[in-house]
Amino acid sequence: MFGTAFPSSDLVSSSFGVATIATLTTALLALIGLSWVSERWRLPVALSGAALLASAFFYFEASQTWLATQQMTAGPRYVGWFVVQPLQVASVFFFARIAGPVPVGVFWRITVGAILMVLSRFLGDGGIFNPTLGVLLSMAFWLYILGEMYFGAMNDAVRKSSGPIRLGYFWIRLIMTIGWAILPILHFVDVVIGAGHQRGIIVLYTLADFVNLITVSMIVLAVAGKERF
Amino acid sequence: MFGTAFPSSDLVSSSFGVATIATLTTALLALIGLSWVSERWRLPVALSGAALLASAFFYFEASQTWLATQQMTAGPRYVGWFVVQPLQVASVFFFARIAGPVPVGVFWRITVGAILMVLSRFLGDGGIFNPTLGVLLSMAFWLYILGEMYFGAMNDAVRKSSGPIRLGYFWIRLIMTIGWAILPILHFVDVVIGAGHQRGIIVLYTLADFVNLITVSMIVLAVAGKERF
Amino acid sequence: MFGTAFPSSDLVSSSFGVATIATLTTALLALIGLSWVSERWRLPVALSGAALLASAFFYFEASQTWLATQQMTAGPRYVGWFVVQPLQVASVFFFARIAGPVPVGVFWRITVGAILMVLSRFLGDGGIFNPTLGVLLSMAFWLYILGEMYFGAMNDAVRKSSGPIRLGYFWIRLIMTIGWAILPILHFVDVVIGAGHQRGIIVLYTLADFVNLITVSMIVLAVAGKERF
Amino acid sequence: MFGTAFPSSDLVSSSFGVATIATLTTALLALIGLSWVSERWRLPVALSGAALLASAFFYFEASQTWLATQQMTAGPRYVGWFVVQPLQVASVFFFARIAGPVPVGVFWRITVGAILMVLSRFLGDGGIFNPTLGVLLSMAFWLYILGEMYFGAMNDAVRKSSGPIRLGYFWIRLIMTIGWAILPILHFVDVVIGAGHQRGIIVLYTLADFVNLITVSMIVLAVAGKERF
Amino acid sequence: MFGTAFPSSDLVSSSFGVATIATLTTALLALIGLSWVSERWRLPVALSGAALLASAFFYFEASQTWLATQQMTAGPRYVGWFVVQPLQVASVFFFARIAGPVPVGVFWRITVGAILMVLSRFLGDGGIFNPTLGVLLSMAFWLYILGEMYFGAMNDAVRKSSGPIRLGYFWIRLIMTIGWAILPILHFVDVVIGAGHQRGIIVLYTLADFVNLITVSMIVLAVAGKERF
Repeated sequence: MFGTAFPSSDLVSSSFGVATIATLTTALLALIGLSWVSERWRLPVALSGAALLASAFFYFEASQTWLATQQMTAGPRYVGWFVVQPLQVASVFFFARIAGPVPVGVFWRITVGAILMVLSRFLGDGGIFNPTLGVLLSMAFWLYILGEMYFGAMNDAVRKSSGPIRLGYFWIRLIMTIGWAILPILHFVDVVIGAGHQRGIIVLYTLADFVNLITVSMIVLAVAGKERF
Repeated sequence: MFGTAFPSSDLVSSSFGVATIATLTTALLALIGLSWVSERWRLPVALSGAALLASAFFYFEASQTWLATQQMTAGPRYVGWFVVQPLQVASVFFFARIAGPVPVGVFWRITVGAILMVLSRFLGDGGIFNPTLGVLLSMAFWLYILGEMYFGAMNDAVRKSSGPIRLGYFWIRLIMTIGWAILPILHFVDVVIGAGHQRGIIVLYTLADFVNLITVSMIVLAVAGKERF
Repeated sequence: MFGTAFPSSDLVSSSFGVATIATLTTALLALIGLSWVSERWRLPVALSGAALLASAFFYFEASQTWLATQQMTAGPRYVGWFVVQPLQVASVFFFARIAGPVPVGVFWRITVGAILMVLSRFLGDGGIFNPTLGVLLSMAFWLYILGEMYFGAMNDAVRKSSGPIRLGYFWIRLIMTIGWAILPILHFVDVVIGAGHQRGIIVLYTLADFVNLITVSMIVLAVAGKERF
Repeated sequence: MFGTAFPSSDLVSSSFGVATIATLTTALLALIGLSWVSERWRLPVALSGAALLASAFFYFEASQTWLATQQMTAGPRYVGWFVVQPLQVASVFFFARIAGPVPVGVFWRITVGAILMVLSRFLGDGGIFNPTLGVLLSMAFWLYILGEMYFGAMNDAVRKSSGPIRLGYFWIRLIMTIGWAILPILHFVDVVIGAGHQRGIIVLYTLADFVNLITVSMIVLAVAGKERF
Repeated sequence: MFGTAFPSSDLVSSSFGVATIATLTTALLALIGLSWVSERWRLPVALSGAALLASAFFYFEASQTWLATQQMTAGPRYVGWFVVQPLQVASVFFFARIAGPVPVGVFWRITVGAILMVLSRFLGDGGIFNPTLGVLLSMAFWLYILGEMYFGAMNDAVRKSSGPIRLGYFWIRLIMTIGWAILPILHFVDVVIGAGHQRGIIVLYTLADFVNLITVSMIVLAVAGKERF
C-alpha cells in the first residue's frame, strides 16, 4: 500500500491509507455478517459488502499510485464509482423490498440511473462532451434516484414497516442526499471551474466516499443484525 | 491495477479498470450466492462464477500490462477466452439440464465446440494458419453451439419448464447470439483487414465481454435465486 | 515482506516481520474461531479479528517500506491506528454487553473517543496543530475511555457476570491501561522532545502493538471459547 | 501474470497463461465441490484440488518468469512436481479406497514412489548424478506405481465396485499411463539428448500437465458428484 | 516466488520453492480438514494449520529474497520461528489435552519455553549476547519442553488414551526430539564455528523445517481424521 514512508502531514496518503484499511475491514465484517443475518437480509448485506470490497480495491490501488507518482487523476475514481454506486443503489432497493413489495421496475430504473449518473460525469470529465453538461446530467439522474427514494414505491413500502428498518432507511436516504451531493460539487470545482485534481479535493472526495460507503453499509448491517441479536 | 494515474479520457484504462472490478465483484456475488441457491442450481452458478473469476484475473493483468506498456495484444485475451468461453457454455448446459433431461453428449459437443471456436481464432491470430480461415472456422463452431441451443435437446428440455428458467434461457441464448457475434467481427477487422489491435477495438472487445459475461452470470444467479427469495 | 536478506541484528526488520506473521496468524485463528464460538460471542470476536487483520495489513506494508527505504515515519502507523483502535474499543463494548445490558450510548462515546484519541495525536504529529496539545488531548480521550471501562456501565455489567468474563475483562482493561499508555509516551519522546522516529522507538511501538492487539484478541477468543470447550 | 503484452504467436506465454487460469479455475471448482460431495469423497477431492492449486501457483510464477526473462528452466517445474505428483497419487489411493478396503501400506509405497520418481529425475537434471540414470530410475518408480494401479490391491478393490468408480478409475489409470509417459520422454530429449529446455519442449510439458492434472481432477470430481446429482 | 528461471542444480531455490508450495498445500489441507474433524480436535488442527501458513508465508518471501539477491540470512528465519514454534508446541498441548486432563499451567510453561528457545538463539545470532550462550540457553529450553512431553502431565494423559492418539503423540514427540535437535546443531555450525549462512546450511534448515512442520501437522490431522473416516 505505501511503498515509501510518508509523514502524517501528507494528508492524501494518510486518507488513502485509512480509506483502504477501513473499507477492507468493513467489507470483511459485512461478509462475516452474511452468515449471521436472517435469509431475507442476505441480498442487501451482500451487495453493500461487495461495494465496500470494490472500493477497498480502488483505494489500495490509489494509494500505491499516489505514493509512486505523487499524483492522482479522476480516471481511477470513476473506475470505482462505475461499480460501487450502482451496487449501493441496488442494495438500498433490496433493503426497502424487505419492508414490503416494491415493483422490480424500480430496481432497473434506479440502477440504470446510477450508472448514467456516473457515466455523464465521466464523459464530461473525459472531455467526450461538455463538463458542465456532465455535471447537470449527473445531478438530474441523482435527483431522480432521490425522487424514487423519497416519493417512490420504496418509501411507501418502508413507511409501513418496523422501527429499525424505517430508521435505517431514513439515515441511508439522508446520507445519499447530503453525501452524494458532495460529488457533483467537487466535480464542478475540479473540472468546470478547473481547479484541477488538487490535494484538497482528493481528500474531500475520499472523506465523501468514507461517509457514503462505510456508514451506509454499517447501517444496513446493523439493521440486519437487529433481527438476530 | 493502475500503477499510474490515468485521465478519464484514457478509455482503455478506464474500461479495463471497470471490467476488473465489475467481474471481480460479480464473481464474489456469484460465489456468495452459491451458499443460498438450492442444490440443483449449484453447478451452473459455480461454473459462471468461475468464468467471472477467470475473467477478472485476465482483466487485472490486462490493466497492469496496458498501464505499464500502453499497448495490448490479442495474446492475453485468448488466454482468458480459452478458459472463460468453455466454462460459460458448460454453465448453459447445466442450466438447461435443470429444466429436464439433456443427454451428456450435448455437454461434450458444445464444450469441445467452444474450445475449438477459440482455438481456431487463436491459430489464425497467431499466424499458425490463415486468419480468414480462423474466423470462418470459429464462426462455424459458434453457429454449431447456437444450433444446439436453438434446436437441440437443451431447447426441448427448457421449453417444457417453468417461467423463470424459460425466460432466463431465452435471454442467455440471445446474448450468446448477439454478444458473441461481436468477437469474430472484431477479429475480422483486427486481423484480417489488419486494422491492428487499436484502442477502439480493445474497448469494444471489453464491452462485449462485459455483456457476455456479467449479464449471463447475473441471469443464471437471478433465476437460481428466484427459487429461494 | 522482506525483499532483502536482513541480519538478526536488524531489530526493526525482525520486529516488523514477527508482527506481520503474528498478527496475520492470530487473525486467522480468530476468524476460524468465529465458526465455533456461540452466537452471542461472534461480534466481539469478529471485531478483534478485523482489528488484527487491519494491523497485519499495516505491518506487512511497513516491513516492505522499511526494507526498501530503511526508514519509517509515523504516517503509516496512524493509518493503522485510525482503524485498529476504534475496532478494539468496539470489541470491548460488545464483550461487556454479553455480561449484561450496556446502553448503546456508551458504544458511541468510546468509539468516537478512540477516533478522536488517534486524530488528535495525528494532527499534532502532522503539524496541523501543536504536538504537545495533541499528546494532551489524546491522553484526555484515552483517560475518558478508561473511565468508562473502570467506572461506567460496562464495568457494572461485567461485575455481576460469570468468572471467565470478569477475569477476561479485568485483563483487557489492564492491558488497555498499561499498554496504551506507551503510545502517548513514545509520541511525546518522538515528536515533542523531538527524538525523531528512531529504530528504538519503532521497535517499542511494535512491541506495544503486540501486547495491545494480540493478547487482547486472544483473551476475547479464549473467554468466548470457554463456553464451548 | 503477463507484465507485457505478448502476441498469440508466443506459444509459451499463451500456454503458461492458459495453464495458470485453467488450473486456478479447476482448483476453485474442486474446492467448491468439496462442500457438496458426500463425506467419503472429501479426501480424494481435497487432494486433487490441492494438487491443482499447487500447480496453478507454479504456472502463475512460471508465466511471470517467462515474460520477464524469456527463458524457462526445469528447476521451477520440479518444484511443482515434487508436490503435485505425490498429491495426485495419494488422491488416487483414497479414490480407490472408497471402492473397498486397500491396505495403508499401498499408500506409503506409491506416495514415496512418486516422490522418488520426481527426485531421481531432479537429481539427474541437476547434474547430481547421471541424467540417463535419473530417467531410468524415475521410469522404474513410475512403472512400479502403475503396477500397483493395474495389479495391486487398489485394482482389486475397484474391480468389485459400482460403475462410475470403476469407469473413473479406468480413465485416471489410463491418463497416468499415457500422460505421465510424456515426462520421462521429454526429460530424455531435454537433458540426455541435450536438446535443452526449448520452447517446443516447454509447451509439450505444459500440455502434459494439462491432461494429467485437470482431466484427472475433473474425473475425481465428476465421479464424486455422481453420488449427489 | 521465482522471478528468475533457476536450474535444478540451484538447490537453495529448489528447496525454498518446494517448501513454499508444500507448506501452502498442507496448510490448505489442514484448513479444509478443520470442517471435518470432530469438535474436540479443532484446536490442535487449527494451530498446526496456522503454523503451516505462517511458515508458507516465510518460505514464499525467502524464495523471492534468494532469487533477487542470491543470499539469505538467519534474520527472516527467526521471524518465522518466533511464530511457528510456539504455535506447534501449543498444538501439541491441545493434542494431548484431548486424551485427558492436562493442567493449563503446562500450556504456559511450554509455550513461553518455546518463545524463549527461539529468543535466546535469536539474541545470540544477532550479537546481542554471546552466541554460544544463545545455543546453550535455547537447548536448555528445548530440553525442558521435551521433559514436559516425556515425563510431564501430557505424557500421563496420553498414556491412558486410545491407540491412534498414543501413536500420534509418540511420533510427534520423536520428531520434536530428533528434528528440533538439528536447529541448535546448525546454529552452532553457522554462528559459533562461524561457517556462516552457507547454501548447505540453508538447505539443511529447510529440510529440518520440512520434517518438523509438515509431518507433525499431517500426524495431527491424520489422528483427528481417524475419528471420522
